Amino acid sequence: MATTLITGGTVVTATGRSLADVLIDGETIVGVLAPGSQLLGTDLAASVDTVIDATGKYVIPGGVDAHTHMELPFGGTFASDTFETGTRAAAWGGTTTIIDFAVQTYGERVMDGLAAWHAKAAGNCAIDYAFHQIIGEVNDDSLQAMRALPEEGVSSFKLFMAYPGVFYSDDAQILKAMQVSADTGLMTMMHAENGPVIDVLAAQLIEKGKTDPYFHGVARAWQMEEEATHRAIMLGNLTGAPLYVVHVSAKQAVEQLAWARDNGQNVFGETCPQYLYLSLEDQLGASSEEWGTFEGAKWVCSTPLRSKHEGHQHHMWQALRTNDIQMVSTDHCPFCMKGQKDLGLDDFRKIPNGIGSVEHRMDLLYQGVVTGQLTLERWVEVTSTTPARMFGLYGKKGVIQPGADADIVVYDPNGHTSIGVGKTHHMNMDYSAWEGYEIDGHVDTVLSRGKVIVDDNQYLGAKGDGQFVKRGLSQYLI
Amino acid sequence: MATTLITGGTVVTATGRSLADVLIDGETIVGVLAPGSQLLGTDLAASVDTVIDATGKYVIPGGVDAHTHMELPFGGTFASDTFETGTRAAAWGGTTTIIDFAVQTYGERVMDGLAAWHAKAAGNCAIDYAFHQIIGEVNDDSLQAMRALPEEGVSSFKLFMAYPGVFYSDDAQILKAMQVSADTGLMTMMHAENGPVIDVLAAQLIEKGKTDPYFHGVARAWQMEEEATHRAIMLGNLTGAPLYVVHVSAKQAVEQLAWARDNGQNVFGETCPQYLYLSLEDQLGASSEEWGTFEGAKWVCSTPLRSKHEGHQHHMWQALRTNDIQMVSTDHCPFCMKGQKDLGLDDFRKIPNGIGSVEHRMDLLYQGVVTGQLTLERWVEVTSTTPARMFGLYGKKGVIQPGADADIVVYDPNGHTSIGVGKTHHMNMDYSAWEGYEIDGHVDTVLSRGKVIVDDNQYLGAKGDGQFVKRGLSQYLI
Amino acid sequence: MATTLITGGTVVTATGRSLADVLIDGETIVGVLAPGSQLLGTDLAASVDTVIDATGKYVIPGGVDAHTHMELPFGGTFASDTFETGTRAAAWGGTTTIIDFAVQTYGERVMDGLAAWHAKAAGNCAIDYAFHQIIGEVNDDSLQAMRALPEEGVSSFKLFMAYPGVFYSDDAQILKAMQVSADTGLMTMMHAENGPVIDVLAAQLIEKGKTDPYFHGVARAWQMEEEATHRAIMLGNLTGAPLYVVHVSAKQAVEQLAWARDNGQNVFGETCPQYLYLSLEDQLGASSEEWGTFEGAKWVCSTPLRSKHEGHQHHMWQALRTNDIQMVSTDHCPFCMKGQKDLGLDDFRKIPNGIGSVEHRMDLLYQGVVTGQLTLERWVEVTSTTPARMFGLYGKKGVIQPGADADIVVYDPNGHTSIGVGKTHHMNMDYSAWEGYEIDGHVDTVLSRGKVIVDDNQYLGAKGDGQFVKRGLSQYLI
Amino acid sequence: MATTLITGGTVVTATGRSLADVLIDGETIVGVLAPGSQLLGTDLAASVDTVIDATGKYVIPGGVDAHTHMELPFGGTFASDTFETGTRAAAWGGTTTIIDFAVQTYGERVMDGLAAWHAKAAGNCAIDYAFHQIIGEVNDDSLQAMRALPEEGVSSFKLFMAYPGVFYSDDAQILKAMQVSADTGLMTMMHAENGPVIDVLAAQLIEKGKTDPYFHGVARAWQMEEEATHRAIMLGNLTGAPLYVVHVSAKQAVEQLAWARDNGQNVFGETCPQYLYLSLEDQLGASSEEWGTFEGAKWVCSTPLRSKHEGHQHHMWQALRTNDIQMVSTDHCPFCMKGQKDLGLDDFRKIPNGIGSVEHRMDLLYQGVVTGQLTLERWVEVTSTTPARMFGLYGKKGVIQPGADADIVVYDPNGHTSIGVGKTHHMNMDYSAWEGYEIDGHVDTVLSRGKVIVDDNQYLGAKGDGQFVKRGLSQYLI
Repeated sequence: MATTLITGGTVVTATGRSLADVLIDGETIVGVLAPGSQLLGTDLAASVDTVIDATGKYVIPGGVDAHTHMELPFGGTFASDTFETGTRAAAWGGTTTIIDFAVQTYGERVMDGLAAWHAKAAGNCAIDYAFHQIIGEVNDDSLQAMRALPEEGVSSFKLFMAYPGVFYSDDAQILKAMQVSADTGLMTMMHAENGPVIDVLAAQLIEKGKTDPYFHGVARAWQMEEEATHRAIMLGNLTGAPLYVVHVSAKQAVEQLAWARDNGQNVFGETCPQYLYLSLEDQLGASSEEWGTFEGAKWVCSTPLRSKHEGHQHHMWQALRTNDIQMVSTDHCPFCMKGQKDLGLDDFRKIPNGIGSVEHRMDLLYQGVVTGQLTLERWVEVTSTTPARMFGLYGKKGVIQPGADADIVVYDPNGHTSIGVGKTHHMNMDYSAWEGYEIDGHVDTVLSRGKVIVDDNQYLGAKGDGQFVKRGLSQYLI
Repeated sequence: MATTLITGGTVVTATGRSLADVLIDGETIVGVLAPGSQLLGTDLAASVDTVIDATGKYVIPGGVDAHTHMELPFGGTFASDTFETGTRAAAWGGTTTIIDFAVQTYGERVMDGLAAWHAKAAGNCAIDYAFHQIIGEVNDDSLQAMRALPEEGVSSFKLFMAYPGVFYSDDAQILKAMQVSADTGLMTMMHAENGPVIDVLAAQLIEKGKTDPYFHGVARAWQMEEEATHRAIMLGNLTGAPLYVVHVSAKQAVEQLAWARDNGQNVFGETCPQYLYLSLEDQLGASSEEWGTFEGAKWVCSTPLRSKHEGHQHHMWQALRTNDIQMVSTDHCPFCMKGQKDLGLDDFRKIPNGIGSVEHRMDLLYQGVVTGQLTLERWVEVTSTTPARMFGLYGKKGVIQPGADADIVVYDPNGHTSIGVGKTHHMNMDYSAWEGYEIDGHVDTVLSRGKVIVDDNQYLGAKGDGQFVKRGLSQYLI
Repeated sequence: MATTLITGGTVVTATGRSLADVLIDGETIVGVLAPGSQLLGTDLAASVDTVIDATGKYVIPGGVDAHTHMELPFGGTFASDTFETGTRAAAWGGTTTIIDFAVQTYGERVMDGLAAWHAKAAGNCAIDYAFHQIIGEVNDDSLQAMRALPEEGVSSFKLFMAYPGVFYSDDAQILKAMQVSADTGLMTMMHAENGPVIDVLAAQLIEKGKTDPYFHGVARAWQMEEEATHRAIMLGNLTGAPLYVVHVSAKQAVEQLAWARDNGQNVFGETCPQYLYLSLEDQLGASSEEWGTFEGAKWVCSTPLRSKHEGHQHHMWQALRTNDIQMVSTDHCPFCMKGQKDLGLDDFRKIPNGIGSVEHRMDLLYQGVVTGQLTLERWVEVTSTTPARMFGLYGKKGVIQPGADADIVVYDPNGHTSIGVGKTHHMNMDYSAWEGYEIDGHVDTVLSRGKVIVDDNQYLGAKGDGQFVKRGLSQYLI
Repeated sequence: MATTLITGGTVVTATGRSLADVLIDGETIVGVLAPGSQLLGTDLAASVDTVIDATGKYVIPGGVDAHTHMELPFGGTFASDTFETGTRAAAWGGTTTIIDFAVQTYGERVMDGLAAWHAKAAGNCAIDYAFHQIIGEVNDDSLQAMRALPEEGVSSFKLFMAYPGVFYSDDAQILKAMQVSADTGLMTMMHAENGPVIDVLAAQLIEKGKTDPYFHGVARAWQMEEEATHRAIMLGNLTGAPLYVVHVSAKQAVEQLAWARDNGQNVFGETCPQYLYLSLEDQLGASSEEWGTFEGAKWVCSTPLRSKHEGHQHHMWQALRTNDIQMVSTDHCPFCMKGQKDLGLDDFRKIPNGIGSVEHRMDLLYQGVVTGQLTLERWVEVTSTTPARMFGLYGKKGVIQPGADADIVVYDPNGHTSIGVGKTHHMNMDYSAWEGYEIDGHVDTVLSRGKVIVDDNQYLGAKGDGQFVKRGLSQYLI
């Protein structure tokens, strides 16, 4: 097997940083070594096949994005990134593993849904991938099937308290699924919004002629995120199931999570770049010459962007620091404006929900390091190490240590990245949700299991480089 | 320099574990390597001077005990361990660094106090040591001196809200010191008990003839720990000083710390083994044939042991898991029963305050892993990695990575340790506070900067092995 | 009209007490006067038709029980008290007004349900009565009908988060009803338990053969009361509806109520005597020679009795003092053991839910005055004044002042009351839930709109004395 | 004795309102009667000496201002209102009782301080008055004297956590005083600000040349009010003393009070009109042609006015509604700008602390009724009934009922009051802190123990009308 040495860089972990060289043998890291490449008299640099010079740069474990939706069917269309386009964009941005959501739709068998997802992904991915399982219908059959998921390397499932008639589970169903979760160790992931109430609010807005994307954010009131979060927590308290709340956007929901953890519960929360940077007013309320007030559709996602006047964004950064929020995923679920988002031109309810960010998560969070919101170590922790630990990938992913997959990013703090269509934008979308963002850093080199797939602004990988990864149970429980 | 390879073990970090070999060159770790000792064709085991077989054992960074009081003058006597005896006992128990408290007494100059501590320690220690600085008198002179502490490698100072007339600082003094802390980055450490109130309560108990050690715990009511903790937090809020509360024992104090952190403050808490295991009723209320009801004097320390009926101990383990308490030190401050503790035979106020645990912290906390209170990773985190990060030692201490000091413990989960006088008890005390405790694990081998100082139940080190370590600013701020 | 003077007593109000005489003209209080019965030279006692001597006794506004269920259809049977028997029992115990729940069953029209309740009550009551309206099916028709309730003198409606398939409203329905509540000022009353989850838990217990009444309490876990309470609060927050949570039994639910009020929401809570005195262990777990472990069926009600080991009862008394709970009703819903409760001999789910206490509320709460749990003033406040204010009766009821209905109780603190079958027990039940309770006080005389209906342990009233009272909007909003 | 009948008005109490006539015989209320003045055939209006027509107006118990400082020595000068001028101004504004603070200065005997206050007040007051006792030096002698206060009709004492060197008590002193409080039932009143810290902050500001009144507010940071409030609460928790925190201005302090009460502690809070209406920016930061930036001195008081950007004022109104704050006093402590406030022209620390509001409290709070902040009942409760209950005056004061002193205000909701110098301003100050405030209501008639002292914008009373009132223990404990 080919050997590689990354020399001269600063290896950053969740707890600290050190000058160290990283030795790779084939797909695997085999050594983390004092810099200088001398080991017991052997000149390592001279002995390996490839040397990557990381002098002055950070050497970090590749990003793990634990929340993506490639090719997700939603509202009569499909998320516009395939596993091929989406994972390649991820690679460009320094993410080397995604965990996508296999879907059991209503009426379908769980294992059939999982098999369909394997079929979509197999042979198409640029980077390694794993699956969570969406349980679209909790019934005796699916509860039984859930018990077999760990053997499939799928150690988590997601339920929805929103989207009645589509993915929605009622509380009785959630209870039963959480009992399986407590029993098996499967992580319960929750979309925590009170969908039945939100749907009424949305319908009432439409009736009043309030059809613009802005009202998507009004209908999905923070109270209904807070409420659902609390409800999920109490069901977790009752059953003993570990709970992971996805895409937390309201500060009041964060308070519920903090409260539960202070009480000793295994409750966790993820946020996304959009909830750290974007707002109800600036994005959902945006207008443009091209789209008018429908411009906001670009940022229609659920949970929605929150009001900047209420300070959710500031609070979310703080929660990331204090570990009241444990990690950052993208909830990558891209749709084009033309032919997709525009389905909702007359009714915000028909706008497919989702933002595409899989390419930019590492950069956007690094900018938080630049502006003093996060430490360098915390950046690595919330984007790679904790995602890996949370979802049973740690050891192979999320860390630079012997035995781990050589998923490594060389990140240049003196580089620069301009985000936007025609600049860095490899996702299959006809716009960028992050147009105009400037990052004071750059993804220089990306290795996936030892292979350099991005370097010097070139994509060197190939479709099918990525493999399915079986996950174990969560390694993050308290 | 001599080279050593630790092979076959499981290296445990704060975030995970892996099978890996550790290569040491002289005093320093130079490589963490895939097991098997083959590196680019070189047989490492054959190439090094010494091989330590760690098969089936844990290889962990040596313990960092951030709170000890060797030779502390207290109540007319001195803590019974010298730097020689205390650090040797620490080594026996797998602790390879202590941070002791240099003392500026009232009327003394800060730098004179620090110099005196250097004099006590230099040439006497079995393991590396660093200093915090106690500021016994906050005045213009000491405030000025504090600004020079970072250059001395002393990046933290401690104030006392207790012990009026000895170490006590009033709120105006605390304010001024915290302003220096906010300015310089020095960590403010706080003994958070309302001493003036406690002293009145104690005097009132004595007046009523309630002189037994048990009443030490009654006088030092949890309300006065909670109150002082809150007060320190608010002074931190006002000034922006980072705050570290020592020896937290009351669950209500923990709630204050959690509240402050949820609000985004840089506030931290340490607990000690005694607050996890021991109680007001069982220890302070103990009696024996030899000592009668004075038996409880063995466990007189401040903050005191808390009532088991109120559940503090249970809550403290939980807080350790949820990171509402960040780390565990010993507050090692040993006194003998004969000639020291017995000064208070007729008046609990005259019992020197302190328990000796420097030898047993790693074992006692490991037992928490055995009983399911902590994960293996959290054990390493709270006993070594976080103490090192909290107090600016990380990189050299608290981690197994290239460039770090080779302070390493080989810990055998299949071994056994019986604590007690005549068994494992190398502290200079005529009793053990932990008599009879049985640990399902064993410290097999201890390396300090590459030198094996404990192995196979033999002490192989020498007085003076340990050196003073300069510390940087905290690496744990949020 | 006949005139009456109550002389020599201590008039107790929600805020204080005073020696005063009360002058009644016909059905109405016309004066509260300095004792001595001299007014501008007129000897009042000599001028009135009747003098009631209350020397040494308390003169209080008659009790207002805001939560009764006479003749309620439930589980295939009917609550065993008719309006005749139930209101007579209430009168015996010093309650002079009840607010019963008219029922719109599923599929029925609201106004038909209300009319049916008028038919049951009219001409049968011993004391005045008013109605809340249960909305058993929230739909466009019932939402419309709700807007007409205030004109009917019905200013509150109740929804159920429990009992799917019977009274249950889902969150979307609750939202819509609360929007009407916010619009009209109608008080939203809520049975706050997550019924769908509880029903699954109950079914699972039955499957395991756990059929005893005790498991009724196990299935209805406090988590599901707390959860539903929080959910109702957030829906209130979203809509602006005033919210009144009925029969609060879990201390965690109280914490939610306190939190909401501290945030400025119009949220209120009622508890019942059973939650102050009785427990899961002592009552639901009771056994007897006659009924074996089915004995507990006597106390099967929802919300259920809570564990004494968790301290709910103690906390509930405290919350009554601090006004985190505003008032005490009975949730009077009696069933006989023979022929009713015994429907659930093999399955606790089939036991009709309810306890009969309408007769004993005033006495049981007065005993709290005797034991120091409440002040005398707070007793009057939580049993009469606040219920009247909360539900728009104040002025006519709940207070002794000119213009008010002469609903007055003369209560003797030197009297004694033994509760139990064959002692004081006028409810139509074949057992007493309060058998053996001894009260250090006694209801001596009861006046309903000026007429003495109970005196000297004699019932002097007649069927039909009581009239329907139209209520206004709540007078208690903050 | 002369008889008076107030007819046709709406009597307002803490719990409700009713059309009723009030009959007075001499100094005392002897009847509250159905309107129409017919009683058992007697025409009351024709039988009394005086009839006051209150048609269309509110008849309320006279205001009780529980916090005034007439002639208080402070900072080398004296509060500018004597008992004569201050109580007359109070009468003008509908306040019929004040509780002033007798002062034990440092080194003085408590009873000498009390006697001095009696000497100042006796024969000079327009309305009734009572005393709290300031304990300026807690020592064995004063602790002993405190036990005799109840016999003197003084059932409360105040301590200061601020003003070191003047009134300041340290925590040990507070503990001892609170032990007496718990023992005797005396209410502990607390000025809760951390004075030692504030004094350092103030000195630092002065050193930097920040001498303007604005910096008074900056130095007295909310953190130090919150902190002291918490500390006082915990000392109350420890001792069992009932605690009343004076002049609460920070929302965070309110949160502490709410927390303590939710935990069942006897903890209460008072706010003042200035904390409901005025702010750091608008008042302390004011400037004028006459005074320049020293204009703010008019509103220098402690605790200080708080920032409007932080929302304290809004939160305080809310807390008044939710009963997290129980009542409103003035902390009336007037100083003239010329010759008094101007002592601090060059140093805000030398500005005598205080605002004069004793005349306007009833009006300013009534305006809260007009704007929907309070109900009419709550207005009466927070300005009269609760103050009377809190401090053992209820029965005589704070209520309109037989046996009560005939301290009554006829308030016209259709009247109007313009506040300002030359308009309504009878306090001995050369400016008004409330200049320009317009009130949609008017104090028409004021009776003090049956005598009309204000009517139709005329002062009809005389110096010496007011008498000392002995108070009992608090009637408000939970």
